[in-house]
Amino acid sequence: MNAPAQLAHLVPDIQQRPMPAELLAALQSRFSSQCSTAMAVREQHGRDESVYDVPPPAAVVFAQNTQDVSDAVTLAASHKVPVIPFGVGSSLEGHLLAVQGGISIDVSRMDQVLSINAEDLTVTVQPGVTRKAVNEAVKSEGLFFPIDPGADASIGGMAATRASGTNAVRYGTMRENVLALEVVTASGEVIRTGTRAKKSSAGYDLTRLMVGSEGTLGVITEVTLKLYPLPEAISAATCSFPTIEAAVRTVIQVIQLGVPIARCELIDANTVRMVNAHSKLGLREEHMLLMEFHGSPASVKEQAETVQEIASEFEGNAFQWATTPEERTRLWTARHNAYFAAIQSKPGCRAISTDTCVPISRLADCLLDSVAEADASGIPYFLVGHVGDGNFHFGYLIDPAIPEERERAEVLNNQLVARALRLEGTCTGEHGVGLHKMDFLLTEAGTGAVDMMRSIKRALDPDNILNPGKIFAL
Amino acid sequence: MNAPAQLAHLVPDIQQRPMPAELLAALQSRFSSQCSTAMAVREQHGRDESVYDVPPPAAVVFAQNTQDVSDAVTLAASHKVPVIPFGVGSSLEGHLLAVQGGISIDVSRMDQVLSINAEDLTVTVQPGVTRKAVNEAVKSEGLFFPIDPGADASIGGMAATRASGTNAVRYGTMRENVLALEVVTASGEVIRTGTRAKKSSAGYDLTRLMVGSEGTLGVITEVTLKLYPLPEAISAATCSFPTIEAAVRTVIQVIQLGVPIARCELIDANTVRMVNAHSKLGLREEHMLLMEFHGSPASVKEQAETVQEIASEFEGNAFQWATTPEERTRLWTARHNAYFAAIQSKPGCRAISTDTCVPISRLADCLLDSVAEADASGIPYFLVGHVGDGNFHFGYLIDPAIPEERERAEVLNNQLVARALRLEGTCTGEHGVGLHKMDFLLTEAGTGAVDMMRSIKRALDPDNILNPGKIFAL
Repeated sequence: MNAPAQLAHLVPDIQQRPMPAELLAALQSRFSSQCSTAMAVREQHGRDESVYDVPPPAAVVFAQNTQDVSDAVTLAASHKVPVIPFGVGSSLEGHLLAVQGGISIDVSRMDQVLSINAEDLTVTVQPGVTRKAVNEAVKSEGLFFPIDPGADASIGGMAATRASGTNAVRYGTMRENVLALEVVTASGEVIRTGTRAKKSSAGYDLTRLMVGSEGTLGVITEVTLKLYPLPEAISAATCSFPTIEAAVRTVIQVIQLGVPIARCELIDANTVRMVNAHSKLGLREEHMLLMEFHGSPASVKEQAETVQEIASEFEGNAFQWATTPEERTRLWTARHNAYFAAIQSKPGCRAISTDTCVPISRLADCLLDSVAEADASGIPYFLVGHVGDGNFHFGYLIDPAIPEERERAEVLNNQLVARALRLEGTCTGEHGVGLHKMDFLLTEAGTGAVDMMRSIKRALDPDNILNPGKIFAL
Repeated sequence: MNAPAQLAHLVPDIQQRPMPAELLAALQSRFSSQCSTAMAVREQHGRDESVYDVPPPAAVVFAQNTQDVSDAVTLAASHKVPVIPFGVGSSLEGHLLAVQGGISIDVSRMDQVLSINAEDLTVTVQPGVTRKAVNEAVKSEGLFFPIDPGADASIGGMAATRASGTNAVRYGTMRENVLALEVVTASGEVIRTGTRAKKSSAGYDLTRLMVGSEGTLGVITEVTLKLYPLPEAISAATCSFPTIEAAVRTVIQVIQLGVPIARCELIDANTVRMVNAHSKLGLREEHMLLMEFHGSPASVKEQAETVQEIASEFEGNAFQWATTPEERTRLWTARHNAYFAAIQSKPGCRAISTDTCVPISRLADCLLDSVAEADASGIPYFLVGHVGDGNFHFGYLIDPAIPEERERAEVLNNQLVARALRLEGTCTGEHGVGLHKMDFLLTEAGTGAVDMMRSIKRALDPDNILNPGKIFAL
C-alpha cells in the first residue's frame, strides 16, 4: 500500500550499507565478548518505541569506557560504516533504527556517576546512567536532577534528543541543564565541550550543538549536568475542570503571572478514565490539571493559593492536595502511567505520539481544534500535556496490523503539526526528529536553515557514518 | 618592541584585504547616503572598548532593514571582502576591528521593536535596539528584559557575544534568553532559527550556535527574546565585609542553599573608594556585596532574611536596605559606574579587563590568589564581580603610552586565566573571545574542539568573509 505524498515518513528510506567481513573481524578481535552479532541482541538494538519496522544493525558493541567508543568509531570510520549510539532504547521517533545498517554502540554499561560537586550543584556522569540513577546518587547530598521524560532514559540519550518532561516549566530542558560534554567525533577523536563554569562566552556553543543532534554529530561519552537543591517544601495538587479550555486558560494565567510553578500537567477526562482503570486510582473523571509547587514552606503556600484563586475563576473545582511523599507519588504515578494505561485499554495497539509545542497564548487554539479533529476521526487516543510549556502529546491508539488506522493517525498528526507551525510553534517539543519528523522539520525550519544543518553535518561527519538518515536527508 | 610568546595576542594579526573599486562603486550605487567612506565614520566603526589599534574598515554601510544587510553581504561575498556587524561599539575584546579590512555593517538604525507578545512573555526586535530601549518598550506591559551588560549594548551585539550581566545569576544569559533569530548567512541568504515555542527538539540548535559566534557565522537581523513579569516586590541591599573571602564565602552559601537571589555583585574596598570619589556616594569603604531580591513581598522578605543570616555568620555588617526605586537606582549606579570611576582615577589610563568565570566552590581560591598577584604587581585596578555566577572582572588601569604597563597587565591576566582553567572555569564568562582571548580559547577548549569550530566556520563561510580573524585563526 502506497502512502500519500504528505505521509512519506510512514515508510523510512532504508538503504543498509554492507558490513565488511574485515571490519567485523576487527571488532571481534578488539572487543571479543563485548561485541555481539546474535540476532536477538541485534534486534533488541534495532528498535525503539516508534512504529517503524527496519532490519537490525549488523553488530552491537557494548562500550565500557570512552576508549571503547573511540575505538569502535575509528574502526567503523575506516570502512565508512554507520555507528548508532544506544542508551536504554526509549526514544520515540526511530532514532535508533539502522536505516543505513552499521553498528549499534550500546553505552548502557557506561553507568558510572563520575563526580558529584555538591557545592557547585553539578554532577558528571557517563552516558549510560539513567535519570533515576542520577537522582539516587545525589539524593544524600540534598540535591536532585529535574529532567524527567516518561521513561527512565539514559542521560546520554536525553542529551542527544534534548529531552525535557514535567519539570521543564520551572527548571528548563536538557538544553539549559547540560553544562559540558565529552564527545567522540566522527574520526574517533575525543573532545570536550564546555567547562563546569555556570556561564561562558568562549567560542561556539558546541555543547548546545551536540545537545539535540540525535547522535548525528558525535557520540556522547560524558555529561556534566546542573543539579538543584531539593526543595524545602513540595506540594502537589489536582484540580478538575468542566472543559479543557477552562484548564488551559488557568494555566495560561498562572504562567503569565510569573508563578514559579514546578510542574503543570494536563490529563484529559478520557485519559483519567484509562488511568483509573489501569492503576485503580479513583480519580475524579474530569479534565484535570496536576501541579506541583517547590520552595520554602511560605512560598509554596503562596504559590498554591494564587493558583487556586485563578483556577476557581475558571470553574476549577475539587482541589486535592498531596503534601506527603506517598500521596504525591500516587498522583504522579497516574501521570507517568498514562501511556501504559492507554496502551492497555486497546489490547495489541501501539501509540503514535504527537509532540507539538506552541507559545502559551496559542495553546487553547491549538489544543481545542486538535481535540475536535481527533474526536471526529473516531481513533481512540490519550491526551497529556506539559501545558505550562505549551507542549502536549496525543497518543493515537492504532492497530499496527491495520495500515489504514496508522494512516488516519498520521493524517491527524500532520494536521496538528501544520496548526502548531501556523501558531508559531514547533513540531517537536521534546521527542526529537528522528525518522518521523524529517518532513515536518523542513516545513518548520525552512530549506535555508536545514541546509545550514546539512552543511554542519557534512563538515563534522564527511562520510556520514554518525547515525545517518536521521533529522534530514543528506 | 616584541611581546613575549605568551603575550602574542598583544599584537593582532593584521592582514587587510584590498577593497575593489568595483565593490565600492556597487555599494555606493545600492546604498547612496547609507554608505560612507568618510574617515571619521570609518574610524568610529574601527574600534571598540579594547586597547587594540587597527586601521579602520574601508567603508561603512548603515543598514535599515534585513534586505539592506542581505544586499551588503551578497555584494561583499561576490568579492570575498569581509563584513563586520556593528551595533553600538561597546564590545571589549576587539570584536569590531577590521583586522582583515572590509565593510562595517552598522545595524544601529535597525532599531524597531517589531512585536511584543505580552501573553507569551516574548518580544521580537531588530538587532540595533538597545537593552534599555527593550525595557522602555515593554515596561507598560508589566514586563522586563533582565540581561544587562554594563553598556547600553545593542541586542544584536549582546546575542553575538553571549552577553550577560548582573541579573544572570537568576535569569541566565543571552544563551538562555534568545528564543529565535533571523540571520543573514555568508551568501546573503536570510534564514530563521527557532520559533516562539518555549522549547523544541527540532534539529540542530542553530539559535545557540549563532549566539556567541561573534558575527563569524552570520549577521543577526532579528532577535526574539524571553521577557519576565516585573517582580511584584524588589529589594536591594548592601553589606560590608572585613575581607573579600568573607564576602565570597557568604555568596557561596547563598547559592548553595538555592536562594533565588536576582543579583549578587562584589565590589572591593578600593573600587568602592573610586566610586565614592566619582559619584559622591558616601558608601562605607569596605568590601561590599550588592544584592537584589525579586518576588512576592513575602518571598523577598524571606530571601533577604536568609541572606542576612548567612552574611552575619561571615562578619558581614552594616546591612543597608533600599526598597524605593530611587534608593535602588543610587546603589546600582555605584555598580554600573565602577568602570568610569576607575578610569577617572588615573587620568589618561585605559582598562584591561579580565573575565574569568569558575565554579562557585572555586571562586574564593581563584579570586584571592589573583588579588594577591595584582596587589604585588603595583598596577592599580578595580575589581567587580558577578560573584553569584563565579564571574568577576579585574580592570587593570594602564597608561597606553607605556607598553611595559600593558605587558604587566597582560601577564597578570594570563596568570589569572591559567588559574581559572585549572579550577575548571573559563577564560570568558560574558565578554567573548574576539582578538584578545584566541590563545586562551585554544588552551581552554583544546585543539580538537577548536578544530571542530573551525570546521563549522569553513562549512558556513567558505570564503571567510564574516568577521574574519576573530575567535580563532583559520
